[in-house]
Amino acid sequence: MSDPEPRPNGDSGAVATSLKDVAARAGVSIKTVSNVLNDRPHISAGTRERVQQAVTELDYRPNPAAKLLKNARTGIIALAVPDIELPYFAELAAAVQRAAERIGRTVLLDQTGGDPEKELMAAKGFRAHLIDGLILSPLALQPEQLRECASSRPTVLLGERFYDAAVDHIAIDNITAGRQAVQHLLSRGFRRIAMIGEDDFYRGPVALRKQGYLEALTAAGIEPDPVLMRPAGHFRRFDGMRAMDELLAAGTPFDAVFAFNDTLALGAMRSLADHGLRVPEDLAVVGFDDIEEGRYSTPRLTTVSPDKTGIAELALERLAGRLSGDLTAEPGFVPAAHRLEVRESSGG
Amino acid sequence: MSDPEPRPNGDSGAVATSLKDVAARAGVSIKTVSNVLNDRPHISAGTRERVQQAVTELDYRPNPAAKLLKNARTGIIALAVPDIELPYFAELAAAVQRAAERIGRTVLLDQTGGDPEKELMAAKGFRAHLIDGLILSPLALQPEQLRECASSRPTVLLGERFYDAAVDHIAIDNITAGRQAVQHLLSRGFRRIAMIGEDDFYRGPVALRKQGYLEALTAAGIEPDPVLMRPAGHFRRFDGMRAMDELLAAGTPFDAVFAFNDTLALGAMRSLADHGLRVPEDLAVVGFDDIEEGRYSTPRLTTVSPDKTGIAELALERLAGRLSGDLTAEPGFVPAAHRLEVRESSGG
Repeated sequence: MSDPEPRPNGDSGAVATSLKDVAARAGVSIKTVSNVLNDRPHISAGTRERVQQAVTELDYRPNPAAKLLKNARTGIIALAVPDIELPYFAELAAAVQRAAERIGRTVLLDQTGGDPEKELMAAKGFRAHLIDGLILSPLALQPEQLRECASSRPTVLLGERFYDAAVDHIAIDNITAGRQAVQHLLSRGFRRIAMIGEDDFYRGPVALRKQGYLEALTAAGIEPDPVLMRPAGHFRRFDGMRAMDELLAAGTPFDAVFAFNDTLALGAMRSLADHGLRVPEDLAVVGFDDIEEGRYSTPRLTTVSPDKTGIAELALERLAGRLSGDLTAEPGFVPAAHRLEVRESSGG
Repeated sequence: MSDPEPRPNGDSGAVATSLKDVAARAGVSIKTVSNVLNDRPHISAGTRERVQQAVTELDYRPNPAAKLLKNARTGIIALAVPDIELPYFAELAAAVQRAAERIGRTVLLDQTGGDPEKELMAAKGFRAHLIDGLILSPLALQPEQLRECASSRPTVLLGERFYDAAVDHIAIDNITAGRQAVQHLLSRGFRRIAMIGEDDFYRGPVALRKQGYLEALTAAGIEPDPVLMRPAGHFRRFDGMRAMDELLAAGTPFDAVFAFNDTLALGAMRSLADHGLRVPEDLAVVGFDDIEEGRYSTPRLTTVSPDKTGIAELALERLAGRLSGDLTAEPGFVPAAHRLEVRESSGG
């Protein structure tokens, strides 16, 4: 491939900045400038930075059409998450962006709202000509749909486990994590453990957390009580507050609650405060996600902490490997780490 | 402009889907399909949706190079904010995305970290050929730099007030908002009002909030006390917690605090809980931003609430007007609304 041709910067009649100018300013060869602009691997961070600074200072813009004709790479990775207002996804997006930046890529952020239509559009790539690869955190899409979409371009799925699909997908072990959260509560002497986040519709991480919850109770000889398993709408603070209101109104006694994400747990704690109940003295609370908010809430929230930085880095590594062709292994499952963070809300 | 040419979908040897196929599936003219694909205005939401569905179902992909050669529009708006992990920016980004979606545009999200270099890169558009316009929330850039950058492409600034710059910029009245927050505390009988968010370096909204704070105190005949004005690092929860630790350690008595954003306020409340102090009985707290977290914290947080949805809609409207050429007014300041939300942390 030859280098992109220089062109005048806009219609201002300014003299065109050439690749040669950029190379001279950065103190590197024209070939190196081209390598940086085309996001080729194996360029040192220092060199990349010097070239990018020269590009900025000289306001150099390669001819986009020529660039696209000659090189399908845009340097853009799409990240599609259900809802950026859920702190877990904001923190994950920030981690993905940091990881992408380290390898000179930009992140195009899409919100799907967990809407199957929008997820399908993200997965199929309505703006497919603009992105090199996709990181998708699906809520609603079925495995068959995902498999089909992922075949058309490098795709990494987050947060689900489709053991039967030949797609790169990264997830923590949600069953084990759910079980550990409940075992922790059992070890502190809590026996009547409610659950917020019931979700019969989607086959996702939430269903696996519930499986862990049921396994831990059963292993402890405790019969799970359907009255203590509550749905959670959109998994936001309001949904957690309402679910706790309902649990308290139901009149069935319980002494702890495992909420399937932290915003639900924080909403549930708000409801408990409104009812004059103390956490953990009257009721213990455990969440899931380890969002920063739960480290500063009163009380601080015990939670399952997925390794968000690790997940982001694995996803980018996987995509980069597919794009460069260096990664030739069959697409499949890549496990990510998690740990239980014990804080004040379950007794500290 | 003529319509983009169809091309085979990838290298699979599949028969190419043409514009004609899409038009037939959507039940509209070829011209209408072209209008939708090129993000032209004045297309009904229903028509847009039908065409996009047909595009998705038929997996139609216009020749990207031909499209770029013939039409500079990509349908992508870049949004550059300092930190997506700060909930204010996550909520703002979500509002921008909702507003963009309504007019058929995608948002490319950039994080600058408030780093002048990265802000300049975002403003100058390192990937300028991929975006139609820019919404930038600057922390560090100087007015001269912003003015220069904004001249090269439609740009809307958020959150600052550069009265002297001929750039479209949207902001609430931070001086008035700061004054109102402190006047509210004064009206509840608090007299020794500390402040978290001192920032001498950047000339931004934070400096204006401080101006409002000083004006309110002075108008009430209270001498501002430098010991009670604390810096706040990156405006995250940790910074608020540390600033409150320092205020308490300083030994100068105070009965209320105005934090210049909600995450600072929530961190400060965490510090107060750690010191066994009650909010608002021992100390009142007022924040700024009205992030969702403060509506569910214990206690609920009194805060200045900027109209985030209004800001997002104004920004998109402004960009769309510049892109279509319908908006011919000189670039300049567009005011956004705010209101004070009084909740438990200042006495309810």
